[in-house]
Amino acid sequence: MDSISEDVLAGSRRALARAITIVEDGGPEATHLVRKLFPYSGKAHLIGITGSPGVGKSTLVDALIAQIRQDNLRVGVLAVDPTSPFTGGAILGDRIRMQDHTLDKNVFIRSMANRGHAGGTALATYDAVRMLEACGYDVVIIETVGVGQSELAIAQTADTTILVLMPGSGDEVQAIKSGIMEIGDIFVVNKGDLPGANKTATEVLHSFELAELPTGWRPPVLVTVAESGQGMPEVWKAVKEHHRYLEESGELKKRRKAKLQAELQELVADIARNNLKDRLEHCPQVKELLKKVLSHKVDPHSAAQGLIQELFGESQEAKV
Amino acid sequence: MDSISEDVLAGSRRALARAITIVEDGGPEATHLVRKLFPYSGKAHLIGITGSPGVGKSTLVDALIAQIRQDNLRVGVLAVDPTSPFTGGAILGDRIRMQDHTLDKNVFIRSMANRGHAGGTALATYDAVRMLEACGYDVVIIETVGVGQSELAIAQTADTTILVLMPGSGDEVQAIKSGIMEIGDIFVVNKGDLPGANKTATEVLHSFELAELPTGWRPPVLVTVAESGQGMPEVWKAVKEHHRYLEESGELKKRRKAKLQAELQELVADIARNNLKDRLEHCPQVKELLKKVLSHKVDPHSAAQGLIQELFGESQEAKV
Repeated sequence: MDSISEDVLAGSRRALARAITIVEDGGPEATHLVRKLFPYSGKAHLIGITGSPGVGKSTLVDALIAQIRQDNLRVGVLAVDPTSPFTGGAILGDRIRMQDHTLDKNVFIRSMANRGHAGGTALATYDAVRMLEACGYDVVIIETVGVGQSELAIAQTADTTILVLMPGSGDEVQAIKSGIMEIGDIFVVNKGDLPGANKTATEVLHSFELAELPTGWRPPVLVTVAESGQGMPEVWKAVKEHHRYLEESGELKKRRKAKLQAELQELVADIARNNLKDRLEHCPQVKELLKKVLSHKVDPHSAAQGLIQELFGESQEAKV
Repeated sequence: MDSISEDVLAGSRRALARAITIVEDGGPEATHLVRKLFPYSGKAHLIGITGSPGVGKSTLVDALIAQIRQDNLRVGVLAVDPTSPFTGGAILGDRIRMQDHTLDKNVFIRSMANRGHAGGTALATYDAVRMLEACGYDVVIIETVGVGQSELAIAQTADTTILVLMPGSGDEVQAIKSGIMEIGDIFVVNKGDLPGANKTATEVLHSFELAELPTGWRPPVLVTVAESGQGMPEVWKAVKEHHRYLEESGELKKRRKAKLQAELQELVADIARNNLKDRLEHCPQVKELLKKVLSHKVDPHSAAQGLIQELFGESQEAKV
């Protein structure tokens, strides 16, 4: 285990792949590895990319990688798919296409497995980012498939979130108009060679005029044809400008603090969840309580309040 | 508060609407209300309906309500949308259409608000179902929009889950084929007047032949045109047959036990999450620990382990 962390720090791609698998699986091994490598994390610029299926996210990621490599930066990509029950096939195809870049030793692409519940997937993503950072990647792209609640939450673990639209993305533009602005720091209308691209871009821009922007950053709306690379230098430029803005305004510190708070909350929730799961299987008193709830003698809220005291009160005693 | 629970038990729709708002908001009021009404819950048949946007879920729910009413049963509908950032507009339209049924005092339709994270939305749904049951509704339909991970989890809080497809739902059929069978107890190919409906139905059926079915239930695949009501009596008949199967095989008890376990895990996770949230705002020691993590002196996993002991160990002491 300790040799894995050393190899990751030395830049081994093989060790990195293994380390990400370990943090995906969770458990004591993952905790140990994160403890070892955490001091070396926190240095990369994290870019989240999200948008509905079909808007061309993977092609855009592909084209963005090419831009980032022109600046001679090392880039890692985590493709997270919390919705895998339904999109398994489509994603696999995308990933295979992206593997073109794996000839380049400075690009590392990895699909993240589904951890069963959304919170768990987000936690594994945080730790996978740390592994990439410890391995010396300068930029990490977190791509999520789909626009569900869990997908957005994961994309927003990044420093800079790019929302990808396409001409005729009526629902999304409507949502942006109705004030759900914090979704994106940069908006990209991809497939810009289709009719209506400029109209969609203008609609998004108009929605900002109506909204009161919460910070000093005015999200740019860019039109791209990722397939041909058109507009991609502007996207990468906007990402760098946003990063500069985050650093100079102090917003980066604020965001990272807020994200860490969210992660800690999710971590304690995860510990509580797993602890109860163990007890439900092995502890006679807990099984007894479950029976009482099933026979409607105790309600679930009261049961949970009692349980959480028991789960962690006891181990506290054991420590004393 | 106590008068609300009495009014719900007496069948007041106004009190029911208020009660669902209270459980959506959470907190001590919700806990109190659930404690009061929990003994009267657990009697309804819960039907989950899910499927991709555009397959006609709401029309199908509409048509299913009409079928259920012919049996003179009272029906509640909870429309849950964990993906609301992006589909706000579309859903609103659907809901307004469904309001046709509100002239019928034995139909109660309600959209559930997004609780910020998927686990919270599922918890509020469990409690909203209890309110409907206490108010005397015989059947509760839980409709989720979209097919993300959170959406599926919520649809699967039901006893009977219906997965709605349409002709040409290639991705979904692919997912079913690849063995993610437990998604649906009943499969409906809606928009059956479009070309390819029977082909899609046959593909789904074929996928069952390849899979080893885990239980004695063979999921039927039905073709409907919900718009005209075609095929809807068969859907309602299949739902009733599935319910009978669940009861006679003992599967209903097993499923409800598994769901209750999942709910308890989510409840203790929620308590841990909220407890830490309070401390992050008010407790100097916790703020100090957060600083240490931000400066990379303590890793998040170790911090969370320490925190959860402190959160619940202390209050244990206070109780003694």
